[in-house]
Amino acid sequence: MSPDQTGAKAPLHGPELSTKPGDRVDVCVIGAGVSGLRAAQRLTERGLAVHVLEARDRVGGRTMGGLLCGEAVDLGGQWVGPGQTRVLALCDELGLDTYPQYAEGRRLMEIDGRVRGYTGTVPRMSLLGLADAGLAMRSLNRAARSIDPAAPWDAPDAAIWDRITMDQWMRRHLHTRGARSLMKIIARAIYTCEPHEISMLCVLGSIAGAGSIEIQAEVHGEGAQHSRIRGGAFQIAARLADRLAPGALTLNAPVHAVEQSETGVLVRHAGGALTADRLIVALPPALAAGIHFQPALPPARLQLQARMPMGSVIKALVAYERPFWRDRGWSGEAIGEQGPFGPVADATPPGSPHGFLVGFFVGEHGRAFAGLPETARRDAAVRSLCRYFGDEAAMPIGYVDKNWIADPWSQGGYAGFTAPGTLTACGRALRVPRGRIHWAGAETATRWIGYIDGAVAAGERAAEEVAELLPPVPRE
Amino acid sequence: MSPDQTGAKAPLHGPELSTKPGDRVDVCVIGAGVSGLRAAQRLTERGLAVHVLEARDRVGGRTMGGLLCGEAVDLGGQWVGPGQTRVLALCDELGLDTYPQYAEGRRLMEIDGRVRGYTGTVPRMSLLGLADAGLAMRSLNRAARSIDPAAPWDAPDAAIWDRITMDQWMRRHLHTRGARSLMKIIARAIYTCEPHEISMLCVLGSIAGAGSIEIQAEVHGEGAQHSRIRGGAFQIAARLADRLAPGALTLNAPVHAVEQSETGVLVRHAGGALTADRLIVALPPALAAGIHFQPALPPARLQLQARMPMGSVIKALVAYERPFWRDRGWSGEAIGEQGPFGPVADATPPGSPHGFLVGFFVGEHGRAFAGLPETARRDAAVRSLCRYFGDEAAMPIGYVDKNWIADPWSQGGYAGFTAPGTLTACGRALRVPRGRIHWAGAETATRWIGYIDGAVAAGERAAEEVAELLPPVPRE
Repeated sequence: MSPDQTGAKAPLHGPELSTKPGDRVDVCVIGAGVSGLRAAQRLTERGLAVHVLEARDRVGGRTMGGLLCGEAVDLGGQWVGPGQTRVLALCDELGLDTYPQYAEGRRLMEIDGRVRGYTGTVPRMSLLGLADAGLAMRSLNRAARSIDPAAPWDAPDAAIWDRITMDQWMRRHLHTRGARSLMKIIARAIYTCEPHEISMLCVLGSIAGAGSIEIQAEVHGEGAQHSRIRGGAFQIAARLADRLAPGALTLNAPVHAVEQSETGVLVRHAGGALTADRLIVALPPALAAGIHFQPALPPARLQLQARMPMGSVIKALVAYERPFWRDRGWSGEAIGEQGPFGPVADATPPGSPHGFLVGFFVGEHGRAFAGLPETARRDAAVRSLCRYFGDEAAMPIGYVDKNWIADPWSQGGYAGFTAPGTLTACGRALRVPRGRIHWAGAETATRWIGYIDGAVAAGERAAEEVAELLPPVPRE
Repeated sequence: MSPDQTGAKAPLHGPELSTKPGDRVDVCVIGAGVSGLRAAQRLTERGLAVHVLEARDRVGGRTMGGLLCGEAVDLGGQWVGPGQTRVLALCDELGLDTYPQYAEGRRLMEIDGRVRGYTGTVPRMSLLGLADAGLAMRSLNRAARSIDPAAPWDAPDAAIWDRITMDQWMRRHLHTRGARSLMKIIARAIYTCEPHEISMLCVLGSIAGAGSIEIQAEVHGEGAQHSRIRGGAFQIAARLADRLAPGALTLNAPVHAVEQSETGVLVRHAGGALTADRLIVALPPALAAGIHFQPALPPARLQLQARMPMGSVIKALVAYERPFWRDRGWSGEAIGEQGPFGPVADATPPGSPHGFLVGFFVGEHGRAFAGLPETARRDAAVRSLCRYFGDEAAMPIGYVDKNWIADPWSQGGYAGFTAPGTLTACGRALRVPRGRIHWAGAETATRWIGYIDGAVAAGERAAEEVAELLPPVPRE
């Protein structure tokens, strides 16, 4: 036990320890998101001394709780799907239940200023557009099947796909306006960037990690948006943190520098320093770029960290007296290229008398609103909702949002992505340990890359890496 | 005075001050490259108290001196051209002379394993290839003329050009293999990345900042490689550092965090901290990402820092008993798509009995060799030189290189570049001050972006910004 453990309190607002270089633990974890906390919890269970350093004043990373009309809501990651076995197993372990995302009724899509209802993954459009979009999605899935999501850079056509943007691919493979518009909406909704920003290999790796583009886009069936966690997904991190040893978490402790020697790793943070046998960096590569490593990280890792920016997303929830859309036979789902608010879905908490909608400002719409005050986003969201759902959407009773782009400890979301050339050149550096330094975080997952499930899996994998090197030591 | 001051002298290895939060200066400058030092020197001349913090154990940034066969050589930026009025004026001011780059005789280009001699900017190839390359260059220059290099994002067609990579543009505008090969070589040589990595708007902004693609590529006439600085370009930084106040430079002081308040800026670095009225960050955006700013930087600036990676370059010099290529009527210039070493040029110091060649591992060739030992690079360079210049190149008498990619305080070179989508979305954040924080560095230049000239101009501009806000105070 380290001398500065105060034995105090709830991890969520725990004591801010000023660790000293003399303090030595078996494993230091940087980042108290789901990935880092899962790693820390697993290692703690094995009897190792673990300390978690977190830059923010809260745990959860890209999951985060908030309040709307007195109800707990998720301001970060919230959905889980049937194929996401790791996060579902973790929820079981933590005593968290899931319930299905509300999706009864027709969806809405705005094309050219007109809103149409539809069912299924592909909206009503011309027969030609339907065929065009259908063929494109089939082509994406076929290409993704040739990719191992754990190593997209090794795919037979990796060089070809990593040389073009998704926009380039769309121009080549989509021939109708409707299909292009739909694919752009899907790209923004899933990858939180514009199609011209992201490498096609990155897109295909993401699809491969989920199974298909329909699974990524869908609520129904195997869809990644199938279920929600009762009480909020943000509870995963809180409950993991509860399972750490007392005092094993320091909040408000951004890490400035890491010095690795033959005997250990010295981690310098805003509140002090500590020494560990092993270090797990559970941050997206873009945020690991904020730490000075000594000796320097290998060139490929340095390049990766400078070439894997976070997507652009702001998440918002709008509350209404009642879920009026349900009465109209609408599911609450709405999409549109014009935005700026969308995709949208029902987010009414079970048992609530009110109706909640959740939606996103993504890609260029996210950027346009990232520097503006919340009231501007609120007005824009309500205007978009009125276009989708009619005048009944004009009178919200509550609004809350989380500007992930402006948060310096996330710098965007949902996940890091890569422009052309990066994955084939530096992708291999994602998970390769550097001496005593190991890498976690949803970006390092080999399935469900960038999802909560990927964060859990990556934390477990990093914990296993470390545990193999540090056999469990029974402690008093 | 701090306990770690060694009493040692010359700014190049100057005293490392352990500044304290109580230490207050008018202006703190982060980065002792040409840009930061120019800003610091200008402000010092105005009577302001300036302190420069540098992460490395030397000044110069992306300029750097080295030794080869007892001669001082430039391991970083080295060339200046007639249009580069700011760096030429600065050389005058510092008492540094220039001399013309050796370029007499024929150039060599390797195509499909065969080496051919040529004169002029475009090598001998089929008539069709010549026309193809010529038209493409004209088209590039025409497009660049519609761009203000100070604000490429405002160009009428900015959105179109920022949506495609240079590779996409080449596929559309180049129809012969020879021209595509030449353009790829030029892209790598000038932008130090692969054509599929860089936004066409970034390319056109760079061309606009220089005047034309020929000026960027050329030695002759107005070419950016026209002249060298006698004794080495690295002397610019050393002489600027000499003009700072004694003790005004701290080496080995990477900055971890910057806290801005209404009364000043607190700068925390590895050796301590200091307070300033104004801060100039004279780093490429990718390296500014290594500093935690409080309050957080605006979203567009955060995004820019995560989306402007450094190019990939390793610079090497190879020494021979004599400049044998000159006897054969060759200028020493050689290019080839196959690489891995090239472009190559004569680097013989005036008056030396020996012959030096300088060359680069760039783009994917740079990455391939960044993680390998120097001997591997040496062997590869010599093999490439033998293909260009014949067996006489097989027996070098010396070799030295600088792996800029692996240097954590540069993370590549020559400069930062952007993938599609970044300049139009976040380019405006390049130079906009954030309260008391101002931005310098070659990436923020409005002409000769990424060149030494741009670094000088950006330092001068930042100094002017700050000086206007801090009138000179005569000091004892």
